[in-house]
Amino acid sequence: MSVRIAIDCMGGDHGVEITLAAASNFLRRDADASVILVGRREAIEPAADRIGLALGSRARLREAAELIAMDEAPAQALRGKKDSSMRVAVDLVKSGAAQACVSAGNTGALMAISRYVLKMLPGIDRPAIASVLPTMRGHTYVLDLGANVDCAPEHLIQFAIMGAMLVSALEHRERPSVGLLNIGEEAIKGNEVVKRAGELLRASGLNFYGNVEGDDIYRGTTDVVVCDGFVGNVALKTSEGLAQMIVTFLREEFERNWLTRLGALAAAPALRGFKRRIDHRAYNGASLLGLRGVVVKSHGSADAYAFEQAIARAAEAVRNGLLERISARMNQAAAA
Amino acid sequence: MSVRIAIDCMGGDHGVEITLAAASNFLRRDADASVILVGRREAIEPAADRIGLALGSRARLREAAELIAMDEAPAQALRGKKDSSMRVAVDLVKSGAAQACVSAGNTGALMAISRYVLKMLPGIDRPAIASVLPTMRGHTYVLDLGANVDCAPEHLIQFAIMGAMLVSALEHRERPSVGLLNIGEEAIKGNEVVKRAGELLRASGLNFYGNVEGDDIYRGTTDVVVCDGFVGNVALKTSEGLAQMIVTFLREEFERNWLTRLGALAAAPALRGFKRRIDHRAYNGASLLGLRGVVVKSHGSADAYAFEQAIARAAEAVRNGLLERISARMNQAAAA
Repeated sequence: MSVRIAIDCMGGDHGVEITLAAASNFLRRDADASVILVGRREAIEPAADRIGLALGSRARLREAAELIAMDEAPAQALRGKKDSSMRVAVDLVKSGAAQACVSAGNTGALMAISRYVLKMLPGIDRPAIASVLPTMRGHTYVLDLGANVDCAPEHLIQFAIMGAMLVSALEHRERPSVGLLNIGEEAIKGNEVVKRAGELLRASGLNFYGNVEGDDIYRGTTDVVVCDGFVGNVALKTSEGLAQMIVTFLREEFERNWLTRLGALAAAPALRGFKRRIDHRAYNGASLLGLRGVVVKSHGSADAYAFEQAIARAAEAVRNGLLERISARMNQAAAA
Repeated sequence: MSVRIAIDCMGGDHGVEITLAAASNFLRRDADASVILVGRREAIEPAADRIGLALGSRARLREAAELIAMDEAPAQALRGKKDSSMRVAVDLVKSGAAQACVSAGNTGALMAISRYVLKMLPGIDRPAIASVLPTMRGHTYVLDLGANVDCAPEHLIQFAIMGAMLVSALEHRERPSVGLLNIGEEAIKGNEVVKRAGELLRASGLNFYGNVEGDDIYRGTTDVVVCDGFVGNVALKTSEGLAQMIVTFLREEFERNWLTRLGALAAAPALRGFKRRIDHRAYNGASLLGLRGVVVKSHGSADAYAFEQAIARAAEAVRNGLLERISARMNQAAAA
């Protein structure tokens, strides 16, 4: 199935240097896809030239003069920059010119613009950010990762539905299991919001596993882990910090002296395999869920490989009817 | 300075097998310390015999017939088991026979019993659990780790004061830096409770760094990281799960085939150094803060080395006047 993705080429820490290379690799890999490259002509054309990406029907250029800074206030980006590459990319989804958009830019701005331009799906109060993480058994989807800091139980149910539909769209599982992130397995554990959310989830008709704890995320206990955005963001950032520390310690130990450096040479095949397995670039591309359009947020520091994964994830979500799945499930919930 | 520690010898997953060995090693290392071994005579005496620990003035036996199960309801443990090893150990602190107690048993029960028997220090509403974690720069103390799931801003301030006093007692830093765990550095970030807590902390006279994010924990940005018990517990458990996954992946890659196994042999010195640096046993021993007595909780699965660290941490807290420091700082805060 053909699919067209709008790409905010200017966003992220590296801009066109990596977004164009990623788009080029994506188009090579996905023959039925096309992209709209959004941004400044004077930046995109020479970059496309350098990497040998032919601008044409499969990679159309759409000019946008402005740029949203990584630290710009979302409200200001929304009101003041109607010709920014991010805004135009989202507008292209709204108009139907593209079926999804991908940006490595300012998360808050992308959230505000997407919500304003695309609006929410019926029955969904707030967008949520969902990301995939590696686990002992494969991978798991966690949401919300920071869009919502004060959640009511009803919001957690909406996250659960959206997360389950994301997994069914991207992983082709019809009844993904959903865990509620808590500080104990028993139903009586947790704060008031989580306890009430547990009751609602048990009655939701979803494949609700029950409470899960922090370590269940990486154990892969459930396909989806639901939490409020504050907790999810802390869990995600804590994980990033710990992974970075562990990798640093490992490197330092191998660089300690000539003996350990020799050991690193001999251990290279195993270390390469290890690195591949914990490579967070493969997991790049968080979905902004609940909108009337597919929006994928790449990590700001993504390289071309990582950004390509985010584009591919957007294409996959479109092809597998993510929005239709969420809408259908919300209708079902409203009817019940 | 001499110090006497009551040890719940029956608690934890392994009971006397590890608690006695830990006590014995601790006494060898700390010539001014003594312990009271609390539990069943018929379990403690043969175990002490086996490891060559002489029961006498430095290691006195105090019988307690009952045992609190790891999954027992705290309220039931509190009301129904007045002759449990955990309860008697806490009672010994209350009576002054010991200056601190250490248990690897049921956390909820230890919290309930300690709070009931010892009572809170003036100005502190709730106990908090504080633990030390390794960081890129050394280590950092995080609290609360699960005792309090619905916190008001005032509770977070109390946690900040207690955490700072814990660091000054255990690390001999007079003005430890305190970070408030949040989902962004800016003061406007976060949920309502955290925003208000930030305002109060800025006016508290503590060495308040400002907001920190999850990755700052392992970056070692501040000496103390303050959060509510729900968020802290999720961060801690998520870290445990991730560390376990990473270590498993590393082992699997080194065991993949004869070539990688050979690599592991050559890499053994570096891998040993790495293992030592992320050895969570060295960080065992969470402090239950806010009580009128020093109570240290060991991980239930602790081995003798890990449990010994928990005992040593309790002795250190007593010797450096942890309770007096917290009380003095609370008086100062009340006066201000």
